Amino acid sequence: MSIERLKAQVAREFGTPAVVIDLDLMERNIARVQAICDAAGVANRPHVKTHKSPVLARMQRDAGARGITCQKLGEAEVMVDGGLDDILISYNLLGAQKMGRLGALLRRAGITVAADNPTVVEGLTEAARTAERPLPVVVECDTGRKRAGVETAQEAVDLARLIARLPGLEFAGFMLYPTDSSWPETQRFLDRARAGVREAGLDARIVSTGGTPNLANLGRLEGTTEHRAGTCIFNDRMMLACGAASLDDCALTVYATVVSRAASERGILDSGSKTLTSDPGGGLDGYGLILEHPQARIKGFAEEHGFLDLTACNERPKVGDVVRIVPNHVCVVVNMVDQLIAVRGGEVADVIPVAARGRLT
Amino acid sequence: MSIERLKAQVAREFGTPAVVIDLDLMERNIARVQAICDAAGVANRPHVKTHKSPVLARMQRDAGARGITCQKLGEAEVMVDGGLDDILISYNLLGAQKMGRLGALLRRAGITVAADNPTVVEGLTEAARTAERPLPVVVECDTGRKRAGVETAQEAVDLARLIARLPGLEFAGFMLYPTDSSWPETQRFLDRARAGVREAGLDARIVSTGGTPNLANLGRLEGTTEHRAGTCIFNDRMMLACGAASLDDCALTVYATVVSRAASERGILDSGSKTLTSDPGGGLDGYGLILEHPQARIKGFAEEHGFLDLTACNERPKVGDVVRIVPNHVCVVVNMVDQLIAVRGGEVADVIPVAARGRLT
Repeated sequence: MSIERLKAQVAREFGTPAVVIDLDLMERNIARVQAICDAAGVANRPHVKTHKSPVLARMQRDAGARGITCQKLGEAEVMVDGGLDDILISYNLLGAQKMGRLGALLRRAGITVAADNPTVVEGLTEAARTAERPLPVVVECDTGRKRAGVETAQEAVDLARLIARLPGLEFAGFMLYPTDSSWPETQRFLDRARAGVREAGLDARIVSTGGTPNLANLGRLEGTTEHRAGTCIFNDRMMLACGAASLDDCALTVYATVVSRAASERGILDSGSKTLTSDPGGGLDGYGLILEHPQARIKGFAEEHGFLDLTACNERPKVGDVVRIVPNHVCVVVNMVDQLIAVRGGEVADVIPVAARGRLT
Repeated sequence: MSIERLKAQVAREFGTPAVVIDLDLMERNIARVQAICDAAGVANRPHVKTHKSPVLARMQRDAGARGITCQKLGEAEVMVDGGLDDILISYNLLGAQKMGRLGALLRRAGITVAADNPTVVEGLTEAARTAERPLPVVVECDTGRKRAGVETAQEAVDLARLIARLPGLEFAGFMLYPTDSSWPETQRFLDRARAGVREAGLDARIVSTGGTPNLANLGRLEGTTEHRAGTCIFNDRMMLACGAASLDDCALTVYATVVSRAASERGILDSGSKTLTSDPGGGLDGYGLILEHPQARIKGFAEEHGFLDLTACNERPKVGDVVRIVPNHVCVVVNMVDQLIAVRGGEVADVIPVAARGRLT
């Protein structure tokens, strides 16, 4: 079936905008990432924040992933309900409500959590007490991004010792997100932190790195045991921009219709900030790549309008045309919708619920 | 109950992040907007894209609104299911799938649609044919914003004549969104367009203006019959910035917890781009106003992290603190969640489903 027939089928059956994934490309992405991890001798723990679907997480597991990574307790609950096990929640969880839920989840599945401060660590004891099972905790380390994570190896060691000392908690290792420029510093940080915990009689059995761009660096950090990458299942315009993917690797596109062409040099898509999101993609020009009109610029949004600057386009779309857009950032686009329309061999094959969407906590 | 007790209640019962509305403030906003419209002799047709809830739309109707405005067919379907009638869909609807749904909806309720081009207008005949009822159509006019809408009064008249000529369609009037700087031009545009349709034997029974900031201008455009304002039910940081609301009028806040304080001058909230959205609010500094720490700057996001710059804060939040955030743009924040937590008199009173969220089409 030609792409024009596919676009017509999606528009006819679902209307636009529609978020569409190509299962053939996606499966190739899953296999490639697994092969990269296997070749590096690093376990694959894909981050499911990108797709929020137990169906797709099971495909990643069946392809060889050791477990999965979640960013929210609610995501982990949906994944356990969907048959997944061995889950790292890479987030500082806090508060009685979450500790009760975490304890309940820990009774049902293998859960590890991350923490970067004593307040969070002390709170986690309540979850372990509820579960009557030890809770493994990794120490999140900031190695250059100035986001979450302790800033020094000494703080990492101190937090590891606190974890080991507190009832119900088990020190499990370190979680890092190295940046392009920080590899030698990250190695030094990790070496010091590992030496420090060893001196305290502890063992960092997990050293977890993250990020789709870092798939190109797997093995570079000595001691890495597993890797968390999310975006690589679909890829997006950010991954194109940093060289982590080519256009052939982009498995997710937003199908949109041109609804207005009030003047020659401009037009409007039926996909605005409530579909493509205002995510700037780390400073990209515009809000998406239109495959049929790569010179068109999605220059801004209303909530349901995408404003097109067509100045640079030789061939310009007309009202009613359906186009496919590679979004700046797939993770936030998937989070806007309740379902992904799955195509295979150029035909609609399935509808996959974004089951964990809306689990705000 | 003090605000600290309320924050503790929300965190305990729902966890954070949570999107919370104050029903007392919201009802005051609804009443004030209705009073402004009544005083100007202009019908109130609130835009429900802001809240996507039939419960809240019925409150607006019961306060005196003539009908409602929707931006999506899916929103209109949910509103009709929820007992609303007299709906303007202020959007170019296109394609067989939507024409079938629009026709079905037109059999059940009073629906008017907007259009700005002949392709859309010609397509609408199919909906009227399906419904076996005439479909009123307003012509969307661009009066300065360069978004949707015909650019000249002559085009507006031509489109009105096409609507009147086509089977099943009824020319109903004009839809505009005047900008601060365009009032005299907008009046000239409207006067010419009305004169033009009158010459053609047509009557513009609807002249619809839009926008919360334009509530301050109601009556300024001679001939206005009704007004579409959305944001004013909750207000947000954009409305604060343009003077359309004061802090006392902000009925929606996002409750978030400080989950990390890795260094003295920075911190992390559990609300990132998947909660507050990357909407820049038309060029505001940062991504929200933290009521407890107005000098704190939400300087950027990961998906579930809000990065705080605390440099300018004398008193800095600690890990575990719950704060309330007025977001840049409420309409896109409501669109991220399945429910609004409704408080009254400082206690949780209700949970209101965002029933039309996820209706992508």
